[in-house]
Amino acid sequence: MFAVVLKEDGYSGQATGPRIENAADWLAAAELPMPKAGAGQVVVKLRAASVNPSDLHFIKGEYGQPRVKGAAAGFEGCGDVVEAGAGAEGLAGKRVAFVAAAAGAWAEFVLCEAMNCIPLRADISDDDGAAQIVNPLTAMAMVDIAAQAKAALVISAAASQLGKLMIGLAQDLGLETIALVRRAEAIAPLEALGATTVLDVTSAAFADDFAKASRALKPRIFLDAVADQTSEQVFANMPNGARWVVYGNLGANPPMLTQIGQLIFMGKQIEGFWLTNWMRTTPAKDQMRVVGEVQARFADGRWRTDVAARIGLRDVIGGLAGATQVSDGKVIIEP
Amino acid sequence: MFAVVLKEDGYSGQATGPRIENAADWLAAAELPMPKAGAGQVVVKLRAASVNPSDLHFIKGEYGQPRVKGAAAGFEGCGDVVEAGAGAEGLAGKRVAFVAAAAGAWAEFVLCEAMNCIPLRADISDDDGAAQIVNPLTAMAMVDIAAQAKAALVISAAASQLGKLMIGLAQDLGLETIALVRRAEAIAPLEALGATTVLDVTSAAFADDFAKASRALKPRIFLDAVADQTSEQVFANMPNGARWVVYGNLGANPPMLTQIGQLIFMGKQIEGFWLTNWMRTTPAKDQMRVVGEVQARFADGRWRTDVAARIGLRDVIGGLAGATQVSDGKVIIEP
Repeated sequence: MFAVVLKEDGYSGQATGPRIENAADWLAAAELPMPKAGAGQVVVKLRAASVNPSDLHFIKGEYGQPRVKGAAAGFEGCGDVVEAGAGAEGLAGKRVAFVAAAAGAWAEFVLCEAMNCIPLRADISDDDGAAQIVNPLTAMAMVDIAAQAKAALVISAAASQLGKLMIGLAQDLGLETIALVRRAEAIAPLEALGATTVLDVTSAAFADDFAKASRALKPRIFLDAVADQTSEQVFANMPNGARWVVYGNLGANPPMLTQIGQLIFMGKQIEGFWLTNWMRTTPAKDQMRVVGEVQARFADGRWRTDVAARIGLRDVIGGLAGATQVSDGKVIIEP
Repeated sequence: MFAVVLKEDGYSGQATGPRIENAADWLAAAELPMPKAGAGQVVVKLRAASVNPSDLHFIKGEYGQPRVKGAAAGFEGCGDVVEAGAGAEGLAGKRVAFVAAAAGAWAEFVLCEAMNCIPLRADISDDDGAAQIVNPLTAMAMVDIAAQAKAALVISAAASQLGKLMIGLAQDLGLETIALVRRAEAIAPLEALGATTVLDVTSAAFADDFAKASRALKPRIFLDAVADQTSEQVFANMPNGARWVVYGNLGANPPMLTQIGQLIFMGKQIEGFWLTNWMRTTPAKDQMRVVGEVQARFADGRWRTDVAARIGLRDVIGGLAGATQVSDGKVIIEP
């Protein structure tokens, strides 16, 4: 079977961000043997895979798990179960959304753990099915942090697909949001989605505007995909008890902590969020409830996957870098 | 009565650390009216006040509460209750350790809340009584973080009075410690106190030595009074789940966060500790139990206050800067 495979093993030891200039630096086309489902596993014939920032971090060797040279790349997609191992017979023939925990989604056939597959309702499109797990569960789990804290939240890179999911979810839960974007054109669409305040971090007035919004809305949770010096300034202008929850590292330069005293006297805190860890530590029944809510949201149109570009599986090497330049929608890979 | 008073109001907006070159920049001698005890308050005739880093931060306007121009400086000391207000009669005539929550200890007579006074056992010296609350309670509360986490701990500025208290306490609790110092001469005394490993951060081998110690002892709590780039490198070399607990800011330059991915993938976290907040949020009976343990430790000699210098109350303006150059003992102010 055809697959897009990793050229390197392990970690790079670098942190250059989820951007690539040429996929051929990291990926190669290959013919691999058909995968074989063991106990508790299934083989999925790919319909569509989605490209997340974590995929780009991973192929470059800067994600939280090591690469295996020659194995297929890609964490997430949807497709049809064509072989089910012992204990996974219930999934046979079903269309499922999946995460391939050790990667492998950018291939004609994908080996998955049955517990990482979610049967899809008929009213969910393949595009939505291909981006059903990583972003939606991350959105649900992270907005829940703000819901538990009963606080307004700040969302950086808010024009991203994940950012848009979080804005809608926060609005449904009655939580106010300060959405941060990098382009003036992104403001109106996010206001239409229900963001309380949308600010362009590249504007000269940003620091003042954010300070004003922070005084008005008192946000105590900052869900941040960027982690640069602007993020640090945002955190520094949040009130007592603020938590800076970093889940991505889009920023090119590491931030300096200019307000150490706020950690001490204002009870502020800096932490991370990783969906893999959430999945390891959240009880299965709570995860299933969240998964059900996610599908209901896609089925009734409250959420949808904005597709920025589509590329064929055989065009990934040549087309991935260009397709991932667009930041406010998903790249879908089709076999 | 004679008092050493603040020359400025409010905050400076700066963070230059707990060092002063000339106390006259921040403090003046003054004659103030005798304080008068209201309900729940007492007036204490000073025996001895201790100088903590927080006192120096405070007089410079970089502590967590605003200065009041013309009011006496100083947070901690011990003395005799010479007037007790309504509800505080039980303290009349007693020798007490105290914290003056809004400052005021560097004066012949100090107005205190009765709830911030601890009657002293006869076997506690005035020196120990003058440093009975801020450092000992901070040590107990912070080492408890490591005890709860059942983890080895890293202690920076470990030759400080507070560092030494924490090393002894950790040893009593069976917790292993990596103590960080800035001078080779400080290594042997801390080993004698029971530190598992003592490392000099100014040594060329420090990075390698720390990495080795971290692999061996797997410390997950870093109690840090410095918060500079060396602190960040220490944190970066700690294992999964490490918590960087900042309680002071001796470092001259703000640290850069070079390992954002560790927050995400390794579940690391950065937070602060402030005794004032601990006192606000910890139930009174738990505080009383801790206070009892503190006195028992000073009474039986497990803890003692190392006095680096003594200055008279009327010599604070001229003598404080010089006396506080010595870093591994307390400066005691006597009326």
